[in-house]
Amino acid sequence: MSLLVVGSIAIDTVETPWGRRDNLLGGSASHFSLAARFFSPVKLVSVVGGDWPAEHTQFLASRGIDVSGIQVVPTGKSFRWTGRYKPNMNDRETLDIELDVFGRFDPKISEEFRRSDYVFLANAAPTTQMKTLEQVPGCRLAVADTMELWIQTAHADVLKLLQKIDGLVINDSEAKLLADTENLVLAGHRVRKLGPRFVVIKKGEHGAMFFSEHETYVLPAYPTEKVIDPTGAGDSFAGAMMGYLAEQDNFDPETLKTAMAYGILVASFNVEDFGLVHMEAITRGDVEARMADYRKMLNF
Amino acid sequence: MSLLVVGSIAIDTVETPWGRRDNLLGGSASHFSLAARFFSPVKLVSVVGGDWPAEHTQFLASRGIDVSGIQVVPTGKSFRWTGRYKPNMNDRETLDIELDVFGRFDPKISEEFRRSDYVFLANAAPTTQMKTLEQVPGCRLAVADTMELWIQTAHADVLKLLQKIDGLVINDSEAKLLADTENLVLAGHRVRKLGPRFVVIKKGEHGAMFFSEHETYVLPAYPTEKVIDPTGAGDSFAGAMMGYLAEQDNFDPETLKTAMAYGILVASFNVEDFGLVHMEAITRGDVEARMADYRKMLNF
Repeated sequence: MSLLVVGSIAIDTVETPWGRRDNLLGGSASHFSLAARFFSPVKLVSVVGGDWPAEHTQFLASRGIDVSGIQVVPTGKSFRWTGRYKPNMNDRETLDIELDVFGRFDPKISEEFRRSDYVFLANAAPTTQMKTLEQVPGCRLAVADTMELWIQTAHADVLKLLQKIDGLVINDSEAKLLADTENLVLAGHRVRKLGPRFVVIKKGEHGAMFFSEHETYVLPAYPTEKVIDPTGAGDSFAGAMMGYLAEQDNFDPETLKTAMAYGILVASFNVEDFGLVHMEAITRGDVEARMADYRKMLNF
Repeated sequence: MSLLVVGSIAIDTVETPWGRRDNLLGGSASHFSLAARFFSPVKLVSVVGGDWPAEHTQFLASRGIDVSGIQVVPTGKSFRWTGRYKPNMNDRETLDIELDVFGRFDPKISEEFRRSDYVFLANAAPTTQMKTLEQVPGCRLAVADTMELWIQTAHADVLKLLQKIDGLVINDSEAKLLADTENLVLAGHRVRKLGPRFVVIKKGEHGAMFFSEHETYVLPAYPTEKVIDPTGAGDSFAGAMMGYLAEQDNFDPETLKTAMAYGILVASFNVEDFGLVHMEAITRGDVEARMADYRKMLNF
């Protein structure tokens, strides 16, 4: 089924204990799309400035992603992010951020894109996410991400959004903040009660948790020695998860669990090199081989 | 098969966001024994002072634990620990610690106890652990725990011990310190190369990882909303794991994985009330019910 993602595509400069890379293709929607494409065709809506390197768009298109929804603002500048990871790879500091055109992002969804069945609202201001949502009233499943900034500065808008979406995919610190508790199990259920039918909490190197009315479960991360650059891991997770749901055209509890497992595995590839370097090189076959290994790991 | 544990039994005072309890039965070997008893008879070797409450020993005996190896030093004082947990339940501060007789612990293993097939060296000075090990040369499986203090202050002795044991069960921060890396997968393999045939890294609320020459895997924690007091969770984990191995009289890869799962589940009961309150109340049936739930959670 058709899968729509609306969010940032950006130019990232990243420094990790393994080195530094300048001007990588980054952004939530880029990582999401590269992960989702293994499972479903992806339609991407985003915005860039006049400085956007054409090769980034060509690259996305070459991976089968429908880039016709990328708006270009010739007089504006693309979203740029520069960050540095600490040796533990969990903590990072933003050295520089220029939102520019993405800060004024007003998503326009084309008639064709409005017929998408599965929609992912990547991290953006909750009012921007709501504008997208209003344009896809007929979608079967709408899932969103958010971040601490919005939970703190646009709390009422985040709460409004939670009332309208089917699923929320957030990380552990966001869940704790939103639910005002240090216990992640409690946090998951509290956030679910704010609106969405299901909540997924991403725990980075510790895997992910799932919460619905009748289900609570945790799956561990795939153990990898090679953590080069965690940027976009959470978006890859969401991309693979949503891509699998769209492929199956189903979001019953069993399918959601398998989708979460695919999210975990594709995210494990994402972190094994800088930016999208590993993500562009792997195939669905690589993902399935790791899945076989993962299922074996969890079987006893 | 027979299972021997050598380590501390103590008087704990603990404060968590849920309240405070004074003079609880604590210590590594107490938590270990209460967890292992579901699977195998346990022989306990420890040391206490003249102030030791007789009811603590009676309680252990009433749960089927062979307490004949508890040495009493009438002129000495029992090991006491007072600690406070932060709201995240992962960080704790030791408010007071009196090792006294346990600080001078010189384990004497009886002839009968020396014939134990499975031996767990609970946290103690590595030289003390080595003294135990020398008295059980014929055991089938010797597994040890240690702590940051010994890794920092008795590094050479820890390394010597690692050469002599079959398995090591440590927590994540200890593994990182011992292996000098922030990546737990790398840490697990590095520590294994220091001697033991297998290494288990306990990650608290995030589960546990296993490392042997040909196996690397992670199992998640059982998701519980009710974390009242984490004291002794790691020892409960080790107790259930060793108890199951002794029950099966086997430590092939499949059995070790199941043993680790039991460790995770019994630890999840441990944290659901203060001290040993929940551990004394549950039955093997409760453990098996949670195991069925856990297997279902990991199946997709």
